[in-house]
Amino acid sequence: MSMQIGVGFLGAGTVGSALIRRLIYESDAIAAKTGLDLVVRGIAVRDLTKDRGIVIPPGLLTDHPREVVDDPTVQIVIEVMGGLDPAGDLVMRALESGKAVVTANKELMASRGRPLLAAAEAAGVSLLFEAAVGGGIPIIRPLSESLAGERITSVLGIVNGTTNYILTRMVEEGIAYEEVLAAAQELGYAEADPTADVGGGDAASKAAILASLAFGTWVDGSQVTREGIEDLRTEDFVFARRLGYIPKLLAIAEDSDEGIAVRVHPTLVPLDHPLASVRGATNAVYVSGPSIGELLFTGPGAGGEPTATALLGDVIMSARERLAGTQVKSRIRFAAGRLRDVADFSTKWLLRITVADRPGVLAQIAAVFGRHEVSIKSVWQDGRGDEATLLLVTHESPEGDLHLAASELAELEVVSEVDSVMRVYNDEP
Amino acid sequence: MSMQIGVGFLGAGTVGSALIRRLIYESDAIAAKTGLDLVVRGIAVRDLTKDRGIVIPPGLLTDHPREVVDDPTVQIVIEVMGGLDPAGDLVMRALESGKAVVTANKELMASRGRPLLAAAEAAGVSLLFEAAVGGGIPIIRPLSESLAGERITSVLGIVNGTTNYILTRMVEEGIAYEEVLAAAQELGYAEADPTADVGGGDAASKAAILASLAFGTWVDGSQVTREGIEDLRTEDFVFARRLGYIPKLLAIAEDSDEGIAVRVHPTLVPLDHPLASVRGATNAVYVSGPSIGELLFTGPGAGGEPTATALLGDVIMSARERLAGTQVKSRIRFAAGRLRDVADFSTKWLLRITVADRPGVLAQIAAVFGRHEVSIKSVWQDGRGDEATLLLVTHESPEGDLHLAASELAELEVVSEVDSVMRVYNDEP
Repeated sequence: MSMQIGVGFLGAGTVGSALIRRLIYESDAIAAKTGLDLVVRGIAVRDLTKDRGIVIPPGLLTDHPREVVDDPTVQIVIEVMGGLDPAGDLVMRALESGKAVVTANKELMASRGRPLLAAAEAAGVSLLFEAAVGGGIPIIRPLSESLAGERITSVLGIVNGTTNYILTRMVEEGIAYEEVLAAAQELGYAEADPTADVGGGDAASKAAILASLAFGTWVDGSQVTREGIEDLRTEDFVFARRLGYIPKLLAIAEDSDEGIAVRVHPTLVPLDHPLASVRGATNAVYVSGPSIGELLFTGPGAGGEPTATALLGDVIMSARERLAGTQVKSRIRFAAGRLRDVADFSTKWLLRITVADRPGVLAQIAAVFGRHEVSIKSVWQDGRGDEATLLLVTHESPEGDLHLAASELAELEVVSEVDSVMRVYNDEP
Repeated sequence: MSMQIGVGFLGAGTVGSALIRRLIYESDAIAAKTGLDLVVRGIAVRDLTKDRGIVIPPGLLTDHPREVVDDPTVQIVIEVMGGLDPAGDLVMRALESGKAVVTANKELMASRGRPLLAAAEAAGVSLLFEAAVGGGIPIIRPLSESLAGERITSVLGIVNGTTNYILTRMVEEGIAYEEVLAAAQELGYAEADPTADVGGGDAASKAAILASLAFGTWVDGSQVTREGIEDLRTEDFVFARRLGYIPKLLAIAEDSDEGIAVRVHPTLVPLDHPLASVRGATNAVYVSGPSIGELLFTGPGAGGEPTATALLGDVIMSARERLAGTQVKSRIRFAAGRLRDVADFSTKWLLRITVADRPGVLAQIAAVFGRHEVSIKSVWQDGRGDEATLLLVTHESPEGDLHLAASELAELEVVSEVDSVMRVYNDEP
């Protein structure tokens, strides 16, 4: 009672090739477990001659992606080419012609997800994107289906494996950012152009998707405030660790009475927080709500095979829906919501300041904070005769106020340098 | 564009009442997020006069469950009465009359899941049970949908909050089992009759469900080998901890070439394993497969509110399917599989033995292990003049061989007592 479904690929990079290999060479196992006979009808690639590490039967490869999208024997299009163009137009065309689409493209979903989902809804087909966030971790379906009845208040994620790998090595081995990045590039953990990862753009796209699903309010990737890890220095982590914190590039999405706040930035996390122990390229998503309390999803955040599993799950669901003759309508609904202004975001802060080691300095510094209504939680001073290192942790303070205070501090005569200003994850309400 | 769906409850205990409260008093929020108008049409309870901590509008309560099941205005039946009878017949009747059913009843699903799922399939309706395992943790849908394309090799779970709470306090505070159990009963973390929890029955039902979904082979609750925590002694944990292990009541489901093995028993877990740090009433499920590597799902394993969230997610999916005019067919398929005999299960073992403190003792003991082909990995001996405590960790050995060796050991003249025999989780292949 095997039921044939034709699938076509847009792209065949690491993730695509991993899935193509399984669909072609493990089709018996898939059929045994699912009752589905998933048949690869076409694979659109840029370079027909590139070695993809798998033997692709003749006749499947094409460098005309339209051939895959327009193939009447293809019922499900798997988009793994990445980027916005031409992926966006191709996905739209596939949906409009009644094909289901499964994608791993976080950038596309974060920037054009809303019109694409609307097109899918209008055409009565599915657009599934479990693979777009968290690699092999099931998080899209749990958020949009299992937790559909929960008023989720926050989603915290370590959603970029490259930066978590870099930060983990910086912290654990005390190696400088540039050196770890170079090593990561050599190992294939970072791209030759690492901007999207280390600059926070990739995490921002994922944060937008998570926020949209968690809160039912569409958040575009471009609306996510972001800050990368490029300027972080290993020595800052030494001081942070002394105070019980470890740095993570966190995607933070929060929903409160004041509106929705979505941002990506390096954050000092308390060592006893579940996200603190997420090491290397592992990803984790931490979901909070009044009824469920806290949920943590941990797993491989990237890599061809885990991401192929996420895609395959979506392909199977999509095939089942197609055989059932319908998609499940209103899978995701988006209401209007209010995004908060970045200057209003509040967090705790850790500042490291090099100051003159003489009486009255702390009073001057405290006065600056006072003027900007930033309240100081704790202070450590480590004097060395002429200069002293001052570590300050503030109570929760808005970004705007803190930055004004920090720039005013830098101009004080007793301050040699504001060495670092880092956000501290605030667990308390 | 709100769409009305009638729901009826079988049972209104802690979980049921939590969901009833939300459906009645938070219906606006649910409608805003999902577009669904879920209307409670009836609630079947045993005792009409019991205080459930919520105001239930008049006319909803009945002590005739058939009235709910047969109510033509009820499209989705929510079964939270627990137990096999009459729950099983009522669920079957509901499915056969074309109603979708959402249940939190692990015992029912583990023992009659297969005919019930077949009846649902035949009637073209859904039977959903996310709430049956892991409380508020989304694990059923991830296993059966997101990971549908993965050849899962093992599922390890801490799936019973009561026993994990008891073990955590025994380990961390050194309190005896009986004392912690009494405290847990006082706090409502353990039932007056705790047998189902501490005897491993509850975890066995959940293990059967997880194994069935993970491997696509139906495993009945009665087929799960189980051992509870009643005989565990705090002093054993002291020795175990010295060797780097912490005790957990693990549900273990494994699929290999030799067949499927599903069991529940106390297991010593290495302190650096992700499951070692799951404390108190928290649950966690650890899924392994060749492509996804390892996934960990952690969250509240029980409690009215988290479990109500899991039920509500299923109710929402079920309502969406109903409005789409169909269920997604073949949600779960079960093939024939081979269950392994318990005597074949292999694991590492930690034995604590009190022996005479004199030369030649170790040789006699080693000879017994040798005769039963149990290979010793490491030995610690702590002499006290007349007697010595011997701690032995074996290599992986079948249950049958180990138990024969242990009973032969107990008969040796130089052995005063085999104080404890505990399984050790074996991370290596």
